[in-house]
Amino acid sequence: METETATPWLTDAEQCAWRTYLDVNRLLTYQMEKDLQPFGLTNNDYEILVNLSESPDQRLRMSDLAAATLQSKSRLSHQITRMESAGLVRRENCESDRRGLYAVLTDQGMATMRKVAPHHVESVRKHFIDLMTPEALADLRESLKPVADHLRTQRGKA
Amino acid sequence: METETATPWLTDAEQCAWRTYLDVNRLLTYQMEKDLQPFGLTNNDYEILVNLSESPDQRLRMSDLAAATLQSKSRLSHQITRMESAGLVRRENCESDRRGLYAVLTDQGMATMRKVAPHHVESVRKHFIDLMTPEALADLRESLKPVADHLRTQRGKA
Repeated sequence: METETATPWLTDAEQCAWRTYLDVNRLLTYQMEKDLQPFGLTNNDYEILVNLSESPDQRLRMSDLAAATLQSKSRLSHQITRMESAGLVRRENCESDRRGLYAVLTDQGMATMRKVAPHHVESVRKHFIDLMTPEALADLRESLKPVADHLRTQRGKA
Repeated sequence: METETATPWLTDAEQCAWRTYLDVNRLLTYQMEKDLQPFGLTNNDYEILVNLSESPDQRLRMSDLAAATLQSKSRLSHQITRMESAGLVRRENCESDRRGLYAVLTDQGMATMRKVAPHHVESVRKHFIDLMTPEALADLRESLKPVADHLRTQRGKA
Protein backbone atom coordinates (compact mmCIF):
# COMPACT_ATOMS: atom_id res chain seq x y z
CA MET A 1 0.00 0.00 0.00
CA GLU A 2 1.36 3.40 -0.86
CA THR A 3 -0.70 5.13 1.81
CA GLU A 4 -2.69 4.19 4.82
CA THR A 5 -5.60 6.21 3.54
CA ALA A 6 -7.30 8.66 5.85
CA THR A 7 -10.61 8.23 4.03
CA PRO A 8 -13.39 8.27 6.61
CA TRP A 9 -15.53 5.16 6.91
CA LEU A 10 -19.10 5.41 5.63
CA THR A 11 -21.63 6.93 8.02
CA ASP A 12 -24.78 4.95 8.79
CA ALA A 13 -26.78 7.01 6.29
CA GLU A 14 -24.12 6.54 3.59
CA GLN A 15 -23.80 2.85 4.30
CA CYS A 16 -27.56 2.46 4.13
CA ALA A 17 -27.82 4.25 0.77
CA TRP A 18 -24.86 2.32 -0.65
CA ARG A 19 -26.23 -1.07 0.41
CA THR A 20 -29.68 -0.25 -0.95
CA TYR A 21 -28.07 0.72 -4.24
CA LEU A 22 -26.01 -2.50 -4.34
CA ASP A 23 -29.04 -4.62 -3.48
CA VAL A 24 -31.13 -3.10 -6.27
CA ASN A 25 -28.23 -3.51 -8.63
CA ARG A 26 -27.84 -7.23 -7.94
CA LEU A 27 -31.51 -8.06 -7.59
CA LEU A 28 -32.58 -6.15 -10.68
CA THR A 29 -29.86 -7.66 -12.84
CA TYR A 30 -31.05 -11.08 -11.68
CA GLN A 31 -34.73 -10.29 -12.33
CA MET A 32 -34.14 -8.81 -15.80
CA GLU A 33 -32.05 -11.82 -16.77
CA LYS A 34 -34.80 -14.13 -15.57
CA ASP A 35 -37.43 -12.24 -17.57
CA LEU A 36 -35.32 -12.47 -20.75
CA GLN A 37 -34.66 -16.19 -20.34
CA PRO A 38 -37.89 -17.41 -22.05
CA PHE A 39 -36.67 -15.59 -25.17
CA GLY A 40 -33.27 -17.26 -25.04
CA LEU A 41 -31.53 -13.95 -24.36
CA THR A 42 -29.19 -12.72 -21.61
CA ASN A 43 -28.91 -9.13 -20.39
CA ASN A 44 -25.73 -8.78 -22.43
CA ASP A 45 -27.44 -10.10 -25.56
CA TYR A 46 -30.27 -7.63 -25.11
CA GLU A 47 -27.90 -4.73 -24.59
CA ILE A 48 -26.13 -5.58 -27.85
CA LEU A 49 -29.41 -5.87 -29.74
CA VAL A 50 -30.45 -2.43 -28.41
CA ASN A 51 -27.14 -0.85 -29.39
CA LEU A 52 -27.23 -2.28 -32.90
CA SER A 53 -30.92 -1.56 -33.51
CA GLU A 54 -30.40 2.11 -32.59
CA SER A 55 -27.37 2.55 -34.87
CA PRO A 56 -27.47 3.73 -38.50
CA ASP A 57 -27.96 0.72 -40.77
CA GLN A 58 -28.19 -1.42 -37.61
CA ARG A 59 -24.44 -1.89 -37.54
CA LEU A 60 -21.50 -0.93 -35.35
CA ARG A 61 -17.77 -1.37 -35.58
CA MET A 62 -16.80 -4.11 -33.12
CA SER A 63 -14.49 -1.73 -31.25
CA ASP A 64 -17.29 0.82 -30.84
CA LEU A 65 -19.68 -1.87 -29.68
CA ALA A 66 -17.09 -3.02 -27.12
CA ALA A 67 -16.74 0.56 -25.88
CA ALA A 68 -20.51 1.09 -25.75
CA THR A 69 -21.06 -2.07 -23.72
CA LEU A 70 -17.88 -1.75 -21.61
CA GLN A 71 -16.70 -5.20 -22.62
CA SER A 72 -13.24 -6.29 -23.56
CA LYS A 73 -12.89 -6.98 -27.28
CA SER A 74 -12.15 -10.65 -26.67
CA ARG A 75 -15.22 -11.12 -24.47
CA LEU A 76 -17.40 -9.29 -26.98
CA SER A 77 -16.00 -11.44 -29.76
CA HIS A 78 -17.06 -14.61 -27.94
CA GLN A 79 -20.48 -13.18 -27.34
CA ILE A 80 -20.95 -12.13 -30.97
CA THR A 81 -19.97 -15.65 -32.03
CA ARG A 82 -22.74 -17.05 -29.85
CA MET A 83 -25.25 -14.52 -31.16
CA GLU A 84 -24.14 -15.27 -34.71
CA SER A 85 -24.92 -18.96 -34.17
CA ALA A 86 -28.36 -17.93 -32.95
CA GLY A 87 -28.84 -15.95 -36.18
CA LEU A 88 -29.26 -12.60 -34.41
CA VAL A 89 -26.19 -10.80 -35.77
CA ARG A 90 -23.53 -11.30 -38.40
CA ARG A 91 -19.97 -10.08 -38.76
CA GLU A 92 -19.11 -8.03 -41.81
CA ASN A 93 -15.82 -6.74 -43.16
CA CYS A 94 -15.67 -3.38 -44.78
CA GLU A 95 -13.01 -3.58 -47.46
CA SER A 96 -12.47 0.15 -47.75
CA ASP A 97 -11.77 0.45 -44.04
CA ARG A 98 -8.92 -1.46 -42.50
CA ARG A 99 -10.28 -1.07 -38.98
CA GLY A 100 -13.60 -2.18 -40.23
CA LEU A 101 -14.92 -5.35 -38.67
CA TYR A 102 -18.59 -4.71 -38.02
CA ALA A 103 -21.37 -6.42 -36.10
CA VAL A 104 -24.63 -6.15 -38.03
CA LEU A 105 -28.13 -6.89 -36.80
CA THR A 106 -29.80 -9.52 -39.01
CA ASP A 107 -33.48 -9.42 -40.01
CA GLN A 108 -34.04 -12.17 -37.49
CA GLY A 109 -32.22 -10.10 -34.86
CA MET A 110 -34.48 -7.14 -35.61
CA ALA A 111 -37.58 -9.36 -35.48
CA THR A 112 -36.40 -10.69 -32.11
CA MET A 113 -35.95 -7.14 -30.80
CA ARG A 114 -39.47 -6.21 -31.94
CA LYS A 115 -40.88 -9.29 -30.25
CA VAL A 116 -38.96 -8.97 -26.99
CA ALA A 117 -38.95 -5.19 -26.48
CA PRO A 118 -42.58 -4.86 -25.27
CA HIS A 119 -42.00 -7.62 -22.72
CA HIS A 120 -38.76 -6.05 -21.63
CA VAL A 121 -40.48 -2.68 -21.14
CA GLU A 122 -43.18 -4.42 -19.13
CA SER A 123 -40.47 -5.93 -16.96
CA VAL A 124 -38.66 -2.57 -16.52
CA ARG A 125 -41.97 -0.95 -15.52
CA LYS A 126 -43.01 -3.70 -13.14
CA HIS A 127 -39.70 -4.04 -11.34
CA PHE A 128 -38.38 -0.49 -11.42
CA ILE A 129 -40.19 2.48 -12.99
CA ASP A 130 -43.72 1.90 -11.66
CA LEU A 131 -42.47 1.39 -8.11
CA MET A 132 -41.51 5.07 -7.94
CA THR A 133 -43.58 8.23 -8.18
CA PRO A 134 -42.54 10.55 -11.03
CA GLU A 135 -40.93 12.76 -8.34
CA ALA A 136 -38.94 9.87 -6.87
CA LEU A 137 -37.82 8.90 -10.37
CA ALA A 138 -36.73 12.48 -11.07
CA ASP A 139 -34.85 12.56 -7.73
CA LEU A 140 -33.12 9.32 -8.63
CA ARG A 141 -32.02 10.70 -11.96
CA GLU A 142 -30.82 13.96 -10.38
CA SER A 143 -28.83 12.06 -7.77
CA LEU A 144 -27.20 9.67 -10.23
CA LYS A 145 -26.51 12.14 -13.06
CA PRO A 146 -23.23 13.51 -11.58
CA VAL A 147 -22.13 9.95 -10.81
CA ALA A 148 -22.70 8.90 -14.43
CA ASP A 149 -20.87 12.00 -15.72
CA HIS A 150 -17.92 11.41 -13.41
CA LEU A 151 -17.64 7.72 -14.29
CA ARG A 152 -17.81 8.44 -18.01
CA THR A 153 -14.90 10.86 -17.64
CA GLN A 154 -12.96 8.29 -15.59
CA ARG A 155 -13.63 5.70 -18.23
CA GLY A 156 -12.39 8.06 -20.94
CA LYS A 157 -9.08 8.34 -19.10
CA ALA A 158 -8.57 4.58 -19.00
CA MET B 1 -46.45 -14.53 -26.92
CA GLU B 2 -49.54 -15.04 -24.84
CA THR B 3 -50.50 -11.37 -25.07
CA GLU B 4 -49.61 -8.36 -27.10
CA THR B 5 -48.99 -6.39 -23.93
CA ALA B 6 -50.62 -3.01 -23.55
CA THR B 7 -47.77 -1.75 -21.37
CA PRO B 8 -47.06 1.84 -22.36
CA TRP B 9 -43.59 2.63 -23.67
CA LEU B 10 -41.31 4.64 -21.39
CA THR B 11 -41.82 8.41 -21.46
CA ASP B 12 -38.78 10.60 -22.12
CA ALA B 13 -38.37 11.29 -18.40
CA GLU B 14 -38.63 7.60 -17.54
CA GLN B 15 -36.28 6.60 -20.33
CA CYS B 16 -33.78 9.19 -19.17
CA ALA B 17 -33.87 8.01 -15.55
CA TRP B 18 -33.64 4.35 -16.59
CA ARG B 19 -30.66 4.93 -18.89
CA THR B 20 -28.86 6.98 -16.26
CA TYR B 21 -29.41 4.17 -13.79
CA LEU B 22 -28.14 1.55 -16.27
CA ASP B 23 -25.09 3.65 -17.13
CA VAL B 24 -24.12 4.09 -13.49
CA ASN B 25 -24.69 0.40 -12.91
CA ARG B 26 -22.35 -0.67 -15.72
CA LEU B 27 -19.74 2.04 -15.25
CA LEU B 28 -19.54 1.66 -11.48
CA THR B 29 -19.24 -2.13 -11.66
CA TYR B 30 -16.39 -1.62 -14.12
CA GLN B 31 -14.66 1.01 -11.95
CA MET B 32 -14.96 -0.97 -8.70
CA GLU B 33 -13.57 -4.06 -10.42
CA LYS B 34 -10.66 -2.02 -11.76
CA ASP B 35 -9.91 -0.61 -8.30
CA LEU B 36 -9.88 -4.10 -6.77
CA GLN B 37 -7.62 -5.54 -9.46
CA PRO B 38 -4.29 -4.50 -7.84
CA PHE B 39 -5.31 -6.64 -4.84
CA GLY B 40 -6.06 -9.64 -7.04
CA LEU B 41 -9.76 -9.52 -6.20
CA THR B 42 -12.92 -9.29 -8.29
CA ASN B 43 -16.19 -7.65 -7.21
CA ASN B 44 -17.59 -11.13 -6.55
CA ASP B 45 -14.58 -12.06 -4.41
CA TYR B 46 -14.96 -8.90 -2.38
CA GLU B 47 -18.67 -9.46 -1.85
CA ILE B 48 -17.97 -12.95 -0.53
CA LEU B 49 -15.24 -11.67 1.80
CA VAL B 50 -17.68 -9.03 3.15
CA ASN B 51 -20.43 -11.60 3.71
CA LEU B 52 -18.13 -14.01 5.51
CA SER B 53 -16.36 -11.38 7.61
CA GLU B 54 -19.72 -10.08 8.89
CA SER B 55 -21.02 -13.53 9.82
CA PRO B 56 -20.63 -15.20 13.24
CA ASP B 57 -17.33 -17.11 13.34
CA GLN B 58 -16.66 -15.78 9.83
CA ARG B 59 -18.47 -18.71 8.27
CA LEU B 60 -21.60 -19.32 6.21
CA ARG B 61 -23.33 -22.41 4.91
CA MET B 62 -22.64 -22.57 1.16
CA SER B 63 -26.37 -22.47 0.38
CA ASP B 64 -26.82 -19.33 2.50
CA LEU B 65 -23.82 -17.70 0.85
CA ALA B 66 -25.28 -18.51 -2.57
CA ALA B 67 -28.59 -16.94 -1.52
CA ALA B 68 -26.88 -13.86 -0.07
CA THR B 69 -24.86 -13.25 -3.22
CA LEU B 70 -27.63 -14.32 -5.66
CA GLN B 71 -25.38 -16.88 -7.30
CA SER B 72 -26.24 -20.38 -8.38
CA LYS B 73 -24.67 -23.01 -6.14
CA SER B 74 -22.55 -24.35 -8.97
CA ARG B 75 -21.18 -20.92 -9.85
CA LEU B 76 -20.46 -20.16 -6.21
CA SER B 77 -18.72 -23.51 -5.86
CA HIS B 78 -16.34 -22.65 -8.72
CA GLN B 79 -15.65 -19.28 -7.18
CA ILE B 80 -14.97 -20.70 -3.73
CA THR B 81 -12.54 -23.15 -5.31
CA ARG B 82 -10.63 -20.25 -6.82
CA MET B 83 -10.65 -18.33 -3.54
CA GLU B 84 -9.54 -21.48 -1.72
CA SER B 85 -6.52 -21.73 -4.02
CA ALA B 86 -5.73 -18.12 -3.17
CA GLY B 87 -5.86 -19.02 0.54
CA LEU B 88 -8.72 -16.62 1.31
CA VAL B 89 -11.37 -19.14 2.34
CA ARG B 90 -11.65 -22.83 3.12
CA ARG B 91 -14.47 -25.34 2.91
CA GLU B 92 -15.47 -27.12 6.08
CA ASN B 93 -17.88 -29.97 6.73
CA CYS B 94 -19.97 -29.99 9.84
CA GLU B 95 -20.42 -33.62 10.80
CA SER B 96 -23.43 -33.03 13.03
CA ASP B 97 -25.29 -31.32 10.20
CA ARG B 98 -25.99 -33.16 6.98
CA ARG B 99 -26.68 -29.96 5.05
CA GLY B 100 -23.53 -28.52 6.47
CA LEU B 101 -20.92 -27.59 3.92
CA TYR B 102 -19.53 -24.25 5.03
CA ALA B 103 -17.30 -21.59 3.55
CA VAL B 104 -15.01 -20.16 6.21
CA LEU B 105 -12.86 -17.06 6.04
CA THR B 106 -9.18 -17.91 6.70
CA ASP B 107 -6.84 -15.70 8.71
CA GLN B 108 -5.30 -14.68 5.42
CA GLY B 109 -8.76 -13.86 4.08
CA MET B 110 -9.45 -11.67 7.09
CA ALA B 111 -6.06 -9.96 6.74
CA THR B 112 -6.85 -9.31 3.07
CA MET B 113 -10.21 -7.78 4.01
CA ARG B 114 -8.51 -5.50 6.55
CA LYS B 115 -5.95 -4.42 3.98
CA VAL B 116 -8.37 -3.88 1.10
CA ALA B 117 -11.39 -2.41 2.91
CA PRO B 118 -9.96 1.13 3.40
CA HIS B 119 -9.07 1.30 -0.28
CA HIS B 120 -12.46 0.00 -1.25
CA VAL B 121 -14.17 2.63 0.90
CA GLU B 122 -11.98 5.27 -0.71
CA SER B 123 -13.13 4.02 -4.10
CA VAL B 124 -16.82 3.97 -3.07
CA ARG B 125 -16.49 7.54 -1.79
CA LYS B 126 -14.62 8.85 -4.80
CA HIS B 127 -16.85 7.29 -7.44
CA PHE B 128 -20.24 7.37 -5.73
CA ILE B 129 -20.91 8.77 -2.24
CA ASP B 130 -18.91 12.00 -2.40
CA LEU B 131 -20.42 12.95 -5.77
CA MET B 132 -23.78 13.50 -4.07
CA THR B 133 -24.91 15.89 -1.36
CA PRO B 134 -26.30 14.19 1.75
CA GLU B 135 -29.76 15.23 0.51
CA ALA B 136 -29.20 13.68 -2.93
CA LEU B 137 -27.97 10.51 -1.26
CA ALA B 138 -31.04 10.40 0.98
CA ASP B 139 -33.26 10.96 -2.08
CA LEU B 140 -31.53 8.12 -3.87
CA ARG B 141 -32.10 5.80 -0.96
CA GLU B 142 -35.75 6.85 -0.64
CA SER B 143 -36.33 6.27 -4.35
CA LEU B 144 -34.65 2.86 -4.42
CA LYS B 145 -35.96 1.49 -1.13
CA PRO B 146 -39.35 0.31 -2.52
CA VAL B 147 -37.57 -1.20 -5.53
CA ALA B 148 -35.25 -3.20 -3.25
CA ASP B 149 -38.19 -4.35 -1.11
CA HIS B 150 -40.21 -5.41 -4.14
CA LEU B 151 -37.30 -7.28 -5.72
CA ARG B 152 -36.52 -9.11 -2.48
CA THR B 153 -40.13 -10.31 -2.33
CA GLN B 154 -39.98 -11.38 -5.98
CA ARG B 155 -36.78 -13.24 -5.31
CA GLY B 156 -38.37 -15.00 -2.33
CA LYS B 157 -41.11 -16.30 -4.63
CA ALA B 158 -38.63 -17.84 -7.06
